[in-house]
Amino acid sequence: MNYRMIGRINALILLIEGFFMIPALIFSLVDRDFAVTKGFLITMGAIVVFAGILLLLSRKAKRGFYAREGLVCVGIGWILISLFGSCPYWISGQIPNFANALFESVSGLTTTGASIVPAVENLARAINYWRCFTHWLGGMGVLVFLLAVAPIGEQSEGFTMHLLRAESPGPSVGKLVPRMRRTAAILYIIYILLTLLDFLFLVCGEMPAFDALCTSFATAGTGGFGIKNDSIAGYSPYIQNVCTVFMLLFGVNFSCYYLILLRQVKNVLKDEEFRLYWGVVIASTALITFNLFRAATYTTFGETLRHSAFQVSSIITTTGFATTNFDLWPTFSKAILLFLMTIGACAGSTGGGFKFARVLLIFKALGRNIRQLLHPNSVKVIHVNGRQVDEKTISNTNAFLVAYVVILISSFLLLCIDHISVLTGFTAVLACLNNVGPGLDAVGPACNYAGLSIFSKIVLIIDMLAGRLEIFPILILFSRRTWKKY
Amino acid sequence: MNYRMIGRINALILLIEGFFMIPALIFSLVDRDFAVTKGFLITMGAIVVFAGILLLLSRKAKRGFYAREGLVCVGIGWILISLFGSCPYWISGQIPNFANALFESVSGLTTTGASIVPAVENLARAINYWRCFTHWLGGMGVLVFLLAVAPIGEQSEGFTMHLLRAESPGPSVGKLVPRMRRTAAILYIIYILLTLLDFLFLVCGEMPAFDALCTSFATAGTGGFGIKNDSIAGYSPYIQNVCTVFMLLFGVNFSCYYLILLRQVKNVLKDEEFRLYWGVVIASTALITFNLFRAATYTTFGETLRHSAFQVSSIITTTGFATTNFDLWPTFSKAILLFLMTIGACAGSTGGGFKFARVLLIFKALGRNIRQLLHPNSVKVIHVNGRQVDEKTISNTNAFLVAYVVILISSFLLLCIDHISVLTGFTAVLACLNNVGPGLDAVGPACNYAGLSIFSKIVLIIDMLAGRLEIFPILILFSRRTWKKY
Repeated sequence: MNYRMIGRINALILLIEGFFMIPALIFSLVDRDFAVTKGFLITMGAIVVFAGILLLLSRKAKRGFYAREGLVCVGIGWILISLFGSCPYWISGQIPNFANALFESVSGLTTTGASIVPAVENLARAINYWRCFTHWLGGMGVLVFLLAVAPIGEQSEGFTMHLLRAESPGPSVGKLVPRMRRTAAILYIIYILLTLLDFLFLVCGEMPAFDALCTSFATAGTGGFGIKNDSIAGYSPYIQNVCTVFMLLFGVNFSCYYLILLRQVKNVLKDEEFRLYWGVVIASTALITFNLFRAATYTTFGETLRHSAFQVSSIITTTGFATTNFDLWPTFSKAILLFLMTIGACAGSTGGGFKFARVLLIFKALGRNIRQLLHPNSVKVIHVNGRQVDEKTISNTNAFLVAYVVILISSFLLLCIDHISVLTGFTAVLACLNNVGPGLDAVGPACNYAGLSIFSKIVLIIDMLAGRLEIFPILILFSRRTWKKY
Repeated sequence: MNYRMIGRINALILLIEGFFMIPALIFSLVDRDFAVTKGFLITMGAIVVFAGILLLLSRKAKRGFYAREGLVCVGIGWILISLFGSCPYWISGQIPNFANALFESVSGLTTTGASIVPAVENLARAINYWRCFTHWLGGMGVLVFLLAVAPIGEQSEGFTMHLLRAESPGPSVGKLVPRMRRTAAILYIIYILLTLLDFLFLVCGEMPAFDALCTSFATAGTGGFGIKNDSIAGYSPYIQNVCTVFMLLFGVNFSCYYLILLRQVKNVLKDEEFRLYWGVVIASTALITFNLFRAATYTTFGETLRHSAFQVSSIITTTGFATTNFDLWPTFSKAILLFLMTIGACAGSTGGGFKFARVLLIFKALGRNIRQLLHPNSVKVIHVNGRQVDEKTISNTNAFLVAYVVILISSFLLLCIDHISVLTGFTAVLACLNNVGPGLDAVGPACNYAGLSIFSKIVLIIDMLAGRLEIFPILILFSRRTWKKY
């Protein structure tokens, strides 16, 4: 294992995190909230010291860097940024309990948006800014950022590939351009432009600039932390609709935007994952609207449509904003939301969940198996978007499904040791593993995660990290084989 | 497609079902319950006429019989025996609604044990006998019975193999002896002997002979229909313990018993699935006992242990008997039961669910994938019990998991159209797809399925059949490819 290189990369990631704390620091200074200023200053100091020691220890790193190193690097890196990211909450005293602060930090970075804060309006502005900014940073990934800006990626293509693969969501990571480093840069440019557009649309709707900034960060990362106690419910219908549209846009595979920039719109429209995603969005919205309208949950059809489109968009992209308490909706609508939670957004987006690309693959593999049952000697290759899919990708997707189900069930069992309802336990795990945020019952949109025991919070912290990193980088940290010499 | 041969086999299956109605007919005559007698007589007459026509139409059947024919034959066969099996309930007026009668019949034959009868003690004795007997017949399978007794199996080994494979549970069907027909016969002999033993143990506990007969049928098939309103709760602790032990015995792969008969006990004790099964049983019982004892659900430790062992045994083998309303247990205990429901019993047993053999396989495949993530060039073959596992078996197991999850989610969505709770919907599907019987909340052990809509009942009927036949024989009936000429 190339420990030195791993140490070096982690030091750089931490420095990036520390650097991004500067705006929050400024907010705290402007607001003369010196407890918060102290929190950020101490954290930034600690990061500089820790990263400095790491860099000193990791001089003369060897170049050998393989898949194993990539996975371990991402797994450890995310644990470190979560730990340091939680310090401002804790040191400033805004979230006095460390377990809670860590939960909030992991929930932010993994773009989950599950909160332990009962009333976010009581938090300092700098803290609310940092909460929402962690969504933005975690959404596209801090390692991807590192690769996009730092010369470290120049070393070799394999090196960059292993890191990108380990942090980026989806069954297979496509290169937009031959060089991986440029791919990372293009992804971040698209990400920044879309976030800016979102911000402008929100400001046009007379949303205060600070609210618009935080909301666009949380939307872009498909995170879901709000800065109001009632999430997005208090804003105007226009703002809610802007959020609906932008959440959906951030749930699309970013390579589609690159294709659009290259004027290959036709290829985007023919993309199987893209079509499936929009098909499910439209169908779910229609079904929920019909269900809510029949149950007369809201007075007008327009209002019904707005709430159902918003909630479908928020849940399918695993953002987790709310304009209404959907835990009070009829069972059928809730069941559809649970289903959407599980699938999540597209591969290569900032959204979490199982991903549409994987759904496509496992369905195609199932179809092939049924055909082979009928005609045992038939041999068939699976195609997506006209391209042949590697058998290894299919076997990895199957392994992902297995790992996903295993983590889901075991976390559910562990959570149920607490005195909670079956529904609370199940949806808490579902909402955290898929990086959604709100579940149902005691963790529904009108409630929060503060009431759970410390043990349950630790389980959910692991689930959120596993969900964001697509399980394996976290799973292999617990495998003896990872740490064996070879 | 060899329609004639399929017709011929289905005619013979139906005749077997009709033949097994004779004891029920005698019970109804003894009880002078002539409405019930009429029900059985008309059904038997209809079977003779229908089977006769089928046999006439299917003279001169060709010999070509492949995997496709095997699957279709089993799928259609089970639908037919379910339909004819429901007629006695319906015609006798004991279950006046046809959808309910069909639900009860499918629930019986698939060994689910989910009932729509609010008070089974009000049913005629002959009807209660038939309900429990369908568990016994469906447990080992009516086609396996046909193969064991009829000369039809002499045709070719491939023919018998395709039928046995399609009806028997588990990822791969092992031959006990070189000839498949003798395998079928040996399975039934073990089955009959174990059932007899169960009956004798029950009678020794001063259970009335009729109760012991029905209970041993329902235990052997891991069905779960009781003939008392409170299931097994009213019987003595001795009888409850006998049930605990025999349910567990019927959840074991029957090839283990064959090995024991051959005095190869060592091989049984080394069997990986066997060890995992008993390990999970013991661990679950210990955890639930601890949980219930701490919550002081029962007064003494002995009572706590008895109830938890009984319920673990009943749920893991997917029988579904109850000695207590476990819906009132603490969440952790309920969560363990839900987990056990999903896994189910061993392959090659009469139990349902995902099966321990498949759990073993997907875990080993997952381990292999993690190893390949760490060392992309490593190649490894999966072994179970020291024998190499075919890659096709692994890919089929993965396909099974996918199909299982897809059916689970889509049935859940369809059920939620009814005005039921999320928990009711989810556990109803779980309990039916895994052939368990009772779920939680409105379908808990103290309730029944009568309150669901006809639409929901049809969905659950399909789930029960899909669960018993391990999905594919039912799934391919809906596939266009099955009916295409080739």
